[in-house]
This record gives sequence, structure tokens and C-alpha cells, in this order.
Amino acid sequence: MKELREAIKTYGRGLGNDVVKVDMFLNHRIDTALLYRMGEEFAARFKEDRPTVILTVEASGIAMAVAAAHALGDLPVVFAKKGATVVQSPDVAQAKVYSFTHKRENIIRVDKRYLPIGSRVLIIDDFLADGQACQGMMALCAQLSCKVAGIGIAIEKGFMPGGKNLRAMGVHLESLAIVTGIEDGKILLADDD
Amino acid sequence: MKELREAIKTYGRGLGNDVVKVDMFLNHRIDTALLYRMGEEFAARFKEDRPTVILTVEASGIAMAVAAAHALGDLPVVFAKKGATVVQSPDVAQAKVYSFTHKRENIIRVDKRYLPIGSRVLIIDDFLADGQACQGMMALCAQLSCKVAGIGIAIEKGFMPGGKNLRAMGVHLESLAIVTGIEDGKILLADDD
Repeated sequence: MKELREAIKTYGRGLGNDVVKVDMFLNHRIDTALLYRMGEEFAARFKEDRPTVILTVEASGIAMAVAAAHALGDLPVVFAKKGATVVQSPDVAQAKVYSFTHKRENIIRVDKRYLPIGSRVLIIDDFLADGQACQGMMALCAQLSCKVAGIGIAIEKGFMPGGKNLRAMGVHLESLAIVTGIEDGKILLADDD
Repeated sequence: MKELREAIKTYGRGLGNDVVKVDMFLNHRIDTALLYRMGEEFAARFKEDRPTVILTVEASGIAMAVAAAHALGDLPVVFAKKGATVVQSPDVAQAKVYSFTHKRENIIRVDKRYLPIGSRVLIIDDFLADGQACQGMMALCAQLSCKVAGIGIAIEKGFMPGGKNLRAMGVHLESLAIVTGIEDGKILLADDD
């Protein structure tokens, strides 16, 4: 998506050889106009997969999820909660997620009532790196007998294995921008997405 | 706001004498149509305060903040990050917040660049109880020489002192629903807001 690639080029910062900082428009400050354009783009790319609910993880996926949900006719959004510990409850589905960014394991959980059996779930997240967060959300969907209708990502780190693994599983994955590498603080992007 | 009051009556659950659970449509699952109606309502109530940026705290304020920002002509949104520890950085403004819900102290912080001097800040949050989160965000605004244009809250606990204290300070505070008490699990609401 051209506008997102341009925002990354203009405002993104590359740190080391794998960190992409987009605090200026996505992860701390949100460029609302760009956010809603991204929501429309997700809607266009996933409309034919007929999602009935959007699933994301707190916190930075929430803004994009509600923008996409709005563009898809006000679908409900469920955001998985993140915690360090397992919650013992028959009402809750949970999965382990190793955070590449924070180098620690989290538990993500959802109240089972909010992803009813047979839901067609569109998973939305800001970043895709090694794919742990997506795999965790897919595990929640599997536990709850929901179908993953697709996965929409803002920024995929193309040099990490997450995207390749998900595509190999046959999931409909769409990334609005793909980072191919970082060189001397400069973020390199694929020409298209 | 009538639609919000009706959602609270239908789906909200009262626990003990002070906990209001609205997981079904606001805090875990989001009713997107209601969310955007709330965003429009905030926009109508704060338009004349001419906000230039919306400030909230992760995670559950983010959805409402972007809905309100969209209705106000795509204002930028900044979400303060929450953490247990003070971050030592000249680029960061921070304030202490005691969480009534979780019975612990958090630090909230924003990157100074994202609230430029002179910004007119509309603070948005899901709940107002003792007002600690709002006071923390107001402290960030004061540190950064920004003006608090107003405070928009989804659900105010009218039996807690936060709203009264903020109104006494002369802040333009708008709560879309006011809970007056909880009796035997039933949430009691003020007739108007």
C-alpha cells in the first residue's frame, strides 16, 4: 500500500538490523487518516473471505482492527488480552506467544463467548515477524472451532520467517508493506505488497 | 447517551458494589457500530473546544480515541504507554497513576515529540472512577505545555470522586453514561448524562 510505504520511508526508523520503529504514525502516535485508509485497504482485500469478526491482540493492534471493522460494515472486534500468567477459567481460551520484540513469553486469552463456534475470523495485527502472535491467535480460533478467514498485517518483516510459514499453511495473508531489510538505519521496502 | 445506557443495561454486569463489567461491547469485545456512534457523540460535544490531538492510555481507551478522532476530521491520536517502571529519557514525559481496578501504581509515558507545545488535547478514556488516569494525563499535558481542551469518558462512576474533582477544577468533562450505583449485580444509571 503506497501511502503506508511512504509513511514508513518518511517517518520510520530502523534500529540495528531488525527493529522497525513506526511510533510516529502507528504505534504510539496514530496518523488517523492513514489508519482509516489502511482499514479500507484491509476491507477491500478480505471482503470476499466474508469475515464475521475481527480478532487482534492488545494494545497496538486495536486501532487498526476497529478501522478495518468499520470499513467492513461495523463487524465486531475482539482483542485478546495479554498477561504473564495462565488464567484458570472454563470461560477462557488461551495460548502462549513468545514476543520477539520483548524477548519474553506472554499468554494471550479471550473469553470464549466472544468468538462463537463457526465464526469466520479475520486476524489483524500491526507487525508480522516470526509469526508467534498470529500463530497464537490461530490457536485460539482452533480451540474455539472458528475458521481463520484471513490475516491482515500492516508491516511484515520479509526477512523473518513468519510470513513464509503462514503462506505455506495456505492462510490468506495480506501485508500492507513488506520490509526487506535495514541498512545503516534505513528501512528497505519491497516495491509492492 | 441513550444507546450506551441501553448497552450497559442489556450487557453490563455489576460485581460487588463498584465493578462495572462491559467486556461484551467495550473492553474485550467491541460493538463497532456503538463505538462509532460514541465517537460521533464525543465529536459533537467537544467540537467547539477545537482539540488538535486526542490523548488516551493503552489499551482499552484506544478504540474510542480513534473513533472520536475520525469523527473530528481525523485528528492524530497519541496513546500513553503503561509500565511498571520509570524510563530515564529526556525525550519522554511521564506521570504516576494508581489503578483503582488493579490496585497498583503504574507509570504512564508519552514521547514528547507527539504532544507539541501548545497542542489542544482532548483526553479520552473508557472509565472515570477516582480520576487517577485523567489526572495522570493532565500532568503529562502540563509538563509539555499543552492545553487540556476537554475530557471525554464513556462510563463515569458517579459514586466515586473523580468526576466531581475534575468538574471542580473547571475542566470540560463529558461522560456518555453515569453509573450511580450497583445493587445486587444490577447497574444503576443516571437518566441522562
